[in-house]
Amino acid sequence: MHRYRSHNCGELRAADVDTDVRLSGWLHNRRDLGGILFIDLRDHYGLVQLVARPGTPANEALGSLTKETVVRIDGKVSARGADNVNPDLPTGEIEIEVSDVEVLGAADQIPFTINADDGVNEERRLEYRFLDLRRERMHRNIMLRTAVISAIRHKMVALGFNEMATPILSATSPEGARDFLVPSRLHAGKFYALPQAPQQFKQLLMIAGFDRYFQIAPCFRDEDARADRSPGEFYQLDIEMSFVEQEDVFRPVEKLMTELFTEFGNGRTVTSPFPRIPFREAMLKYGSDKPDLRAELELVDVSDVFAGSGFKAFADKHVRALAVPDTADQSRKFFDQLGDFAVQQGAKGLAWVRVGEENALTGPIAKFLTEDDVKALVAALDLKPGHAVFFGAGEFDEVSKIMGAVRVEAAKRVGRFVEDEFRFCWIVDFPMFEKDEDTGKIEFSHNPFSMPQGGLEALETKDPLDILAWQYDIVCNGTELSSGAIRNHEPEVMYKAFAIAGYDKETVEAEFGGMLRAFKFGAPPHGGIAPGVDRIVMLLADEPNIRETIAFPLNGNAQDLLMGAPSEVDEARLKELHLSLRKPQAK
Amino acid sequence: MHRYRSHNCGELRAADVDTDVRLSGWLHNRRDLGGILFIDLRDHYGLVQLVARPGTPANEALGSLTKETVVRIDGKVSARGADNVNPDLPTGEIEIEVSDVEVLGAADQIPFTINADDGVNEERRLEYRFLDLRRERMHRNIMLRTAVISAIRHKMVALGFNEMATPILSATSPEGARDFLVPSRLHAGKFYALPQAPQQFKQLLMIAGFDRYFQIAPCFRDEDARADRSPGEFYQLDIEMSFVEQEDVFRPVEKLMTELFTEFGNGRTVTSPFPRIPFREAMLKYGSDKPDLRAELELVDVSDVFAGSGFKAFADKHVRALAVPDTADQSRKFFDQLGDFAVQQGAKGLAWVRVGEENALTGPIAKFLTEDDVKALVAALDLKPGHAVFFGAGEFDEVSKIMGAVRVEAAKRVGRFVEDEFRFCWIVDFPMFEKDEDTGKIEFSHNPFSMPQGGLEALETKDPLDILAWQYDIVCNGTELSSGAIRNHEPEVMYKAFAIAGYDKETVEAEFGGMLRAFKFGAPPHGGIAPGVDRIVMLLADEPNIRETIAFPLNGNAQDLLMGAPSEVDEARLKELHLSLRKPQAK
Repeated sequence: MHRYRSHNCGELRAADVDTDVRLSGWLHNRRDLGGILFIDLRDHYGLVQLVARPGTPANEALGSLTKETVVRIDGKVSARGADNVNPDLPTGEIEIEVSDVEVLGAADQIPFTINADDGVNEERRLEYRFLDLRRERMHRNIMLRTAVISAIRHKMVALGFNEMATPILSATSPEGARDFLVPSRLHAGKFYALPQAPQQFKQLLMIAGFDRYFQIAPCFRDEDARADRSPGEFYQLDIEMSFVEQEDVFRPVEKLMTELFTEFGNGRTVTSPFPRIPFREAMLKYGSDKPDLRAELELVDVSDVFAGSGFKAFADKHVRALAVPDTADQSRKFFDQLGDFAVQQGAKGLAWVRVGEENALTGPIAKFLTEDDVKALVAALDLKPGHAVFFGAGEFDEVSKIMGAVRVEAAKRVGRFVEDEFRFCWIVDFPMFEKDEDTGKIEFSHNPFSMPQGGLEALETKDPLDILAWQYDIVCNGTELSSGAIRNHEPEVMYKAFAIAGYDKETVEAEFGGMLRAFKFGAPPHGGIAPGVDRIVMLLADEPNIRETIAFPLNGNAQDLLMGAPSEVDEARLKELHLSLRKPQAK
Repeated sequence: MHRYRSHNCGELRAADVDTDVRLSGWLHNRRDLGGILFIDLRDHYGLVQLVARPGTPANEALGSLTKETVVRIDGKVSARGADNVNPDLPTGEIEIEVSDVEVLGAADQIPFTINADDGVNEERRLEYRFLDLRRERMHRNIMLRTAVISAIRHKMVALGFNEMATPILSATSPEGARDFLVPSRLHAGKFYALPQAPQQFKQLLMIAGFDRYFQIAPCFRDEDARADRSPGEFYQLDIEMSFVEQEDVFRPVEKLMTELFTEFGNGRTVTSPFPRIPFREAMLKYGSDKPDLRAELELVDVSDVFAGSGFKAFADKHVRALAVPDTADQSRKFFDQLGDFAVQQGAKGLAWVRVGEENALTGPIAKFLTEDDVKALVAALDLKPGHAVFFGAGEFDEVSKIMGAVRVEAAKRVGRFVEDEFRFCWIVDFPMFEKDEDTGKIEFSHNPFSMPQGGLEALETKDPLDILAWQYDIVCNGTELSSGAIRNHEPEVMYKAFAIAGYDKETVEAEFGGMLRAFKFGAPPHGGIAPGVDRIVMLLADEPNIRETIAFPLNGNAQDLLMGAPSEVDEARLKELHLSLRKPQAK
């Protein structure tokens, strides 16, 4: 028999009754019923019940052990009485009559309970992460993460992509967030940087001819923690493809996401195909470029209705309306609460009307609306008796933000928010340029390295503010999983795009010389995307905090409480790295 | 038709003749035969021949393009004449009559040739790695790496292992080589370290109960480059298992390696099962704990034969002999050349004899051997007429090193070296402790964290120098792929092992407190291994330098010549990281 186990703790069934077995695992729980010990033994694979009769050496040995002790036991499988079968446990039809016990790993008193959620705080959990990970929820989350990432790899290979690792010790990148730096010992005064993303390397792989690349890529940003972003390091499913247009990128990603979220969504369904929503339309209809499509209500721009209106609060402002069916009969309290919600989002208040018989409007602002206003509203919003209408007025961006939030909140309150679905969409047609409101200068809206729609000709002939980019976001249930783009791979187009944004050729070459040089030796058209792996796992695990899906995360203050990082290093190490610590300023 | 291609450059066959196709790729080569242009168009998938007839726009367009320009062409597939079929090319039966050409990516004059090996130096290749990777050999190596790593993952999952990522921003480790450090912005004067290996984390995963872990793990050591080690970062197949003994680790690894090297060995076979060779036996028989078993000769310790001998050169020394069959009739030059080889390995010379009829010995040292010596040698070495015998004498380690090298060299010279096989072995039974020759102190031989064979009892009762460890190496064709061990998971055993090596409990707790703490809350017996992925790929690709198997390696001087790393950073960044540069010492 094997030194430690003939079976694991999750696999014994009624068919195994009378088998002599050897098991190893953790002492999960112990009950003493009139001297008979019932013990749940736990390992990675499951739980199994041990029985130790009074007066046996096994009873004596098991009676004194602390919870979480690791033991090896020998015993015989026996059937539980019909009354004692546990239908919630795969091994619930059997138990093990223990004949021999060996302690393999003793356990001190543990600092929090493993077999129940005792509300211990996160700092303590991270300090003892090796215990926290034994808890059912964390074990399930980490195994889900493992299965999701393994499935991603499998599906990406099946889709014709090749996984390639790009360097982690690399150069500081010219754009984006703050890098982590790594001092060089061999090259005094010089530093490597950890990659914020393998953006340049994946483009170089395309220029090198590898056609379809992916990587579960570790990325590093020295930024403060957020609920959906771990400080320090995170993983993205980095993808790049050659000889593609936008839809060629969408196709495999859509297939991947649909399969992945169906397979691991725990019964939640995926609406596919994913709608393509132009950025401008998303802002108008949903007030956001990260629309949560589970909320089945849409905003409508009714600014025209109030252009030149006598109603000062709306006149000549940007006015967005949200029509909500079957809501006119809600209490005043309902409207007030939604108003309070709008105020929390930064609104001064929330104007509203009820739509009654024959589309008669009532409510606080009804008296300010002319007959023509009402007619125009009924037409624009396709109003019917029973609708309620909410209004926001002001600057476009502010109204979008507030009414976007009101849209989702209202949908939840009136039962027009579909739970248990993953609703993806592609946001497309982002503007290439925008005007800085203060300076009036033309700037890049998002990614300067995206290919403008229409290419060089568009840059040379169109109003820059009318030029769209081949740039896109993938959004699921209001969470942006990634931006992506068809890249600008033509130096002439890049020089021109940067010229519009006020950069001369010399500056462009100084800043982005490495990539420009590569583009000059035969670059294929290419594009890609990089969905966040941690966010995908968060959505699938239905966890609100990304740290619940990572085995050993840094805490919110970027510390590893388990291993004690970051930590001080001695003077000799600093000297070797040609560094000295800067003295803190006297206060 | 797709914007860029209806087919790739590797897939068209005779069955596709008369099909209208669109292809995109790199202009690999161009020949002008009487005005007809024959062009090889290349992409990731293959090469295809284009034809552009004189006087056509296609001929004009293609005639002036530089090599490596990226083009999109339209055309019709036609059969090559029987004389022009290229059997070496999968697309060799067809060619494309080009009707339309579009330049997608212009190419400047390239700095070295892509379609032939022009002997350009490595620095230049790395500076233009995106071009170097287009070359057939590099493309093949990187795709081999991709396929090997993908297969490893697939096989490990099939073997019941779960891949889990461990932190990259972590704590400095108490053992081993030099860490790379990462200064913390949030915590002044403190540093993260990049992991030399995820050793502690994988053990914590076992303590957390995950049972069977693996990871294609990025590892970082600030060490100088070697042919088989990239400076900076490298990858290992990190493996750890709970409730296992040594053979439980060997079984899946042996299955993995056998399958992997069979699948990707390009016809080379794998000898399986892998022999288990005790460390001491390996040193005696092969002069090395990394024996190349392709050399089918073995060393024999004949020290006893010469104990008290009158032959001063051998008397009372450690003497190792190598008997080589069918070699007595080799010329004097053969023996001299092998002697020269031994001298290059550090020997003063190489003693030898020929074995003649009736086992009569002749040769330089024959006259020093008594009749008894000869008898004893014949018995010890099982000598037969035709053998030659080579001798090394001196200190054990020195003789092992020299005669180990002579063994392999002799085998190659006499045709007893088997090419085209992967011969693996496990080296087992490493000593736990050794005596420092200078101080006489007992020290750990290898890994202080391995479980001693016999556990606490052995430590308490045996001579430390007789205690073996549950530690092992896996070796292939003379290359060590990894060390591994059954870990010491019992605090009491660890305190005792360290006490023998002269460390008191307080020191052990100060140095290794983190792991010790984890061991005190119920640790399972566990063990693992971590074969080097880069070395595996090197062996399979049959490349002598590890950089030939990595897409973007640092050069031997730890620089990224393509992206310009490491590089200087500005004062503001240093200040943010609470650092200043140390001024170089005046010389």
